[in-house]
Amino acid sequence: MAQTTIVVRLESTQKHFPFGQVATLIDSYGGEVESVDIIRSGKEGSIRDITVSISDQKQAALLSAFEAVEGLRTIHVSDRIFLAHLGGKIRVMPSRPIKTRDDLSHVYTPGVAKVCEAIQANPDNTYTLTIKRNSVAVISDGTAVLGLGNIGPHAAIPVMEGKAMLFKQLANVDAFPICLDTQNVEEIIHIVKAISPIFGGINIEDISSPRCFEVEQRLINELDIPVFHDDQHGTAIVVLAGLYNALKLVDKKLEEVRIVVNGVGAAGSAICKMLLFAGAQHLIPVDREGIIARGEHYEHPVWNWLASQEQVEANKGTLHDAIVGADVFIGVSKAGVLKVEDVKKMNKGNIVFAMANPNPEIEPDAALPHVSILATGRSDYPNQINNVLVFPGMFRGALDCRASRITESMKLAAAQAIAEVVSEDELDEHYIVPSIFNEQVVRQVSRAVIKAAIAEGVARRVPNQYM
Amino acid sequence: MAQTTIVVRLESTQKHFPFGQVATLIDSYGGEVESVDIIRSGKEGSIRDITVSISDQKQAALLSAFEAVEGLRTIHVSDRIFLAHLGGKIRVMPSRPIKTRDDLSHVYTPGVAKVCEAIQANPDNTYTLTIKRNSVAVISDGTAVLGLGNIGPHAAIPVMEGKAMLFKQLANVDAFPICLDTQNVEEIIHIVKAISPIFGGINIEDISSPRCFEVEQRLINELDIPVFHDDQHGTAIVVLAGLYNALKLVDKKLEEVRIVVNGVGAAGSAICKMLLFAGAQHLIPVDREGIIARGEHYEHPVWNWLASQEQVEANKGTLHDAIVGADVFIGVSKAGVLKVEDVKKMNKGNIVFAMANPNPEIEPDAALPHVSILATGRSDYPNQINNVLVFPGMFRGALDCRASRITESMKLAAAQAIAEVVSEDELDEHYIVPSIFNEQVVRQVSRAVIKAAIAEGVARRVPNQYM
Repeated sequence: MAQTTIVVRLESTQKHFPFGQVATLIDSYGGEVESVDIIRSGKEGSIRDITVSISDQKQAALLSAFEAVEGLRTIHVSDRIFLAHLGGKIRVMPSRPIKTRDDLSHVYTPGVAKVCEAIQANPDNTYTLTIKRNSVAVISDGTAVLGLGNIGPHAAIPVMEGKAMLFKQLANVDAFPICLDTQNVEEIIHIVKAISPIFGGINIEDISSPRCFEVEQRLINELDIPVFHDDQHGTAIVVLAGLYNALKLVDKKLEEVRIVVNGVGAAGSAICKMLLFAGAQHLIPVDREGIIARGEHYEHPVWNWLASQEQVEANKGTLHDAIVGADVFIGVSKAGVLKVEDVKKMNKGNIVFAMANPNPEIEPDAALPHVSILATGRSDYPNQINNVLVFPGMFRGALDCRASRITESMKLAAAQAIAEVVSEDELDEHYIVPSIFNEQVVRQVSRAVIKAAIAEGVARRVPNQYM
Repeated sequence: MAQTTIVVRLESTQKHFPFGQVATLIDSYGGEVESVDIIRSGKEGSIRDITVSISDQKQAALLSAFEAVEGLRTIHVSDRIFLAHLGGKIRVMPSRPIKTRDDLSHVYTPGVAKVCEAIQANPDNTYTLTIKRNSVAVISDGTAVLGLGNIGPHAAIPVMEGKAMLFKQLANVDAFPICLDTQNVEEIIHIVKAISPIFGGINIEDISSPRCFEVEQRLINELDIPVFHDDQHGTAIVVLAGLYNALKLVDKKLEEVRIVVNGVGAAGSAICKMLLFAGAQHLIPVDREGIIARGEHYEHPVWNWLASQEQVEANKGTLHDAIVGADVFIGVSKAGVLKVEDVKKMNKGNIVFAMANPNPEIEPDAALPHVSILATGRSDYPNQINNVLVFPGMFRGALDCRASRITESMKLAAAQAIAEVVSEDELDEHYIVPSIFNEQVVRQVSRAVIKAAIAEGVARRVPNQYM
C-alpha cells in the first residue's frame, strides 16, 4: 500500500490551534504526524504546516475531514514528492568561482583562446581541458518511461533529472538530460551524433523496443565514445549479478540450469544475450506468442537471432509449458502471468526474479512458500533488482579509462563485481545483491570495468593504478 | 603586453635550493614571483613550485635561463590558464542530496512517476517541476569563435563552458553547452528544436555570419522559448548602453548624431538595427566594400535591408569619406582601419567605440588625444564594451517571466538599464558602462526586461512583485 507524505498548511481562526483534534483525525485515518512547523502564531489565529504520512487511498478522506473542523481552514496541501521537484532536481555549477577580473580572463576571453587552440591542435585535449572527461548525456525520447509508456519528452524529464542526480551522487559523473522531441530513429541517431562533442558517454534511456536496438547499435558503430542503453544492459547486468549469488545459495551452476526468460523486449533481449555470453546452456525465451523455439523463424530480429542459438531449447509452447522443470524464472513482462501452480512445477532450489513494474509477475507473498530465492524490482521486498547498481559504476569506469565502447566483457565484469560486493558471509536468500547505497558498488564495478576495457584494448587511457 | 601566469616546478639536486639565483633571473626578465610552494624538501634535494607572472614574449627566455643554472632541473611548467581548465569548468549537481531510500523514492522511481503524469496532463508543469524553469542551452557550431574563426565544435567547448560559468555565477541560470558537430543551417535548426524540451531558453553563440541570421530567426519563429544570438544582440545592447551614457557626457542626442558603424557582420547588423529601433536618424553603415548607401542594391540581405531605410545616408564612398563630420564611430571590424587623420575629421565631442578583437580599429593611445570618449572591447583600457553585461540579466529576466521570445523593446530596456547603473554622479569619460562584477547590473537588466516583456504581452508568467 503506497504511502505518501503530504504537507498540509492549516489556519486556525481561533486563539488556540486545535492540534489535538487534528492529530486525532490523522490517527483515525491511519496516518502519522511526521512534523509540525509553526508558520505564524498570534491572537488573530495561527498557521501550521503539518507533515503527514498517509496511504494514497486515505488522503482525500483526511483532507475532507479537516474541512469539517470548526474554525480550521486548509490553506494548501503540498505533496513531498512535488515539493522535491520544484524548480527541477539538478543545477549546473561553475567548478570554481569567478571572483576577479583575473579569474575571468583565465576562464573566458582572452585567456580561454589558447585553450581552444590547444584543442584545435590536438582534439584529444578535449578530454583534459573540458567537461568531456566526466560528462554523460542521458538521452530519451520519452516513448517507454517507467510503467507509463509513451509520455513524450517533457513528461520524461523528471526521470532523466533523477538519473542525472544519481550519476553525480553515486559516481561523481556530470550527466545532463537531453529529452528529444522526435521519435524517428534516424533523427535520434543523427541528433545524438551531432551533440556528442561535449559528452564523454551516452546513456540511452526509456526509448521503446524495438527502436532502441537500432538506435543503440548504430550509435555504438558511429561514435567513438561509450553508448549504453540502460534499460537493456543495466537490467541484464544486475540480473546476472543476482543470479550468480542466487546460484551459489542453491549450489547450482549457470551452465547447468534451465532458465526461462519471460518478456523478450528491450530488457529481456539483453538478459538473454548476457546469459548466453556468461555461459548459460539451457535458455527458454518466452514472449506473448509463447516460447521462442530454436529453429523457428520470427519477424522480430532479436527473437530470430535467439532461435538460431544452440543453447535455446527447441520445444514450442506457452509459459506454463516452459516453466515445468525450470530452475530459474526471470520475468520482465507483466503482473500476474506466473501462477503459484507454475512455480510448484519448477525444479527444487528454484529461483524466481519477478521484475514486472510496478507489480511483479507473481504476488511475492503467494510465491514465497514455493520458491527458494525470490527477487523483484520493488524496494518493499528483499532482493531488489535495481539497475542503479550498474550505470554509475559502469560509466565511472568507462570515463576513467576513456573506453571507446562498452564491450560484453565489461558488462560481464560489472555483473561479477556487483555479485562480489556481497561477501560469502553476508550472502543469504534475502541478500543476493548489495544496497545501492553501498559505496563498494561503484568502486568495484568501475575497477572491474576498467580492467576489462584494458584487457580488450578499448581503453584509450590507462589510469595510473592500473599500469 | 599580455602577461601570463605560469607555475614552474623546479628540482634542486643540491642541499640548498638556489632561490636567490632563481628570483634574480625572474626579475631580470621582467617577471614577478607570485608565490613559492615547497613540494618536497630534504637532504637529497628539494622541489618547489614557483608561480611567476611574466610577459608572453619573455616566458621562453626565462625558462631557458633556468636550464642553465647548475644543479637545477625544470620538472614541468604549468600555465595557470590550462590549470584552470583541467577537467572542465562546469559540474552538474543534484539540487539536494539523496541520502536515504526515502529520498530516492521521492526523486526517482517510484515517486517520480506521478510528477511525470502531472506534466503529461499539463505540459506547463514542465516549468514548475523541472529544470526548464531555469535552464539555457548555449549552442555553437564552432564556426566563429572569438578571434579564432572556424575551429569546430570541440575547440569551441572551453568558451561555451566559460559562458555557462558566467550564467550561473552572475545570474543563477543553469546553462549547459551544446557544441554541434554540423555546420548545416537546416540541421542546426532541426537539432536545436529537437533538444529544446528541457531548456527554458536558447543562447546561440559563435555561429558565423550570415548563417547565424537564419538560424536565429527560424528558431525564434519555430520555438516558444526565448532565442538570443549573443554575438549580435548582446553586443548591440551594450553598445547602445555605452552610447547613451557617452552622449550624455558630450551633451548630444541620439536622434541628432551622425553614426558610422564599421563592419556589418553579425554584431554590426544588430548594432545598426538596434540604433534604428532606438531612434537614430543618421546612420552610415560601412563594410569592406565601402559605405552601404540608401537606394543601392546588395546581395547580403541585411545590407540590402539597411539600404532601404530612410535613416541611412545615401552618399557612397569609403570609411574615410564616411567619418568626415561624424559624431560617433562604432567599429566591429579589424585592427588599424581607423586612422588618426580620420578621427581628427570627426565633429567635436566625438565618440569612438573601437571594438575589433583582440586589437582595436585604432590604437587607443594614438586616438585618445583626438577623441572625447573612447571605448574598446579590451579590459586593459577604460570603457570595456563587454556583452557579459547583457546575457545574464537578459536570460534571468526572460526566464523569470517565461517570455515566449525576446523582443526589440526588451533589448532596448536592457540597454537603458545598463546605462542607468552608472549614476549621474559617477558618469565620466572613463566610466560609461558598469563593471560586470557590479551586482546591480543583472538585477536592473532583468527587472527592465521583465517589465518590457509584460508590457508587450510576451510574458507567460507575471512574477509577484510585478503584479
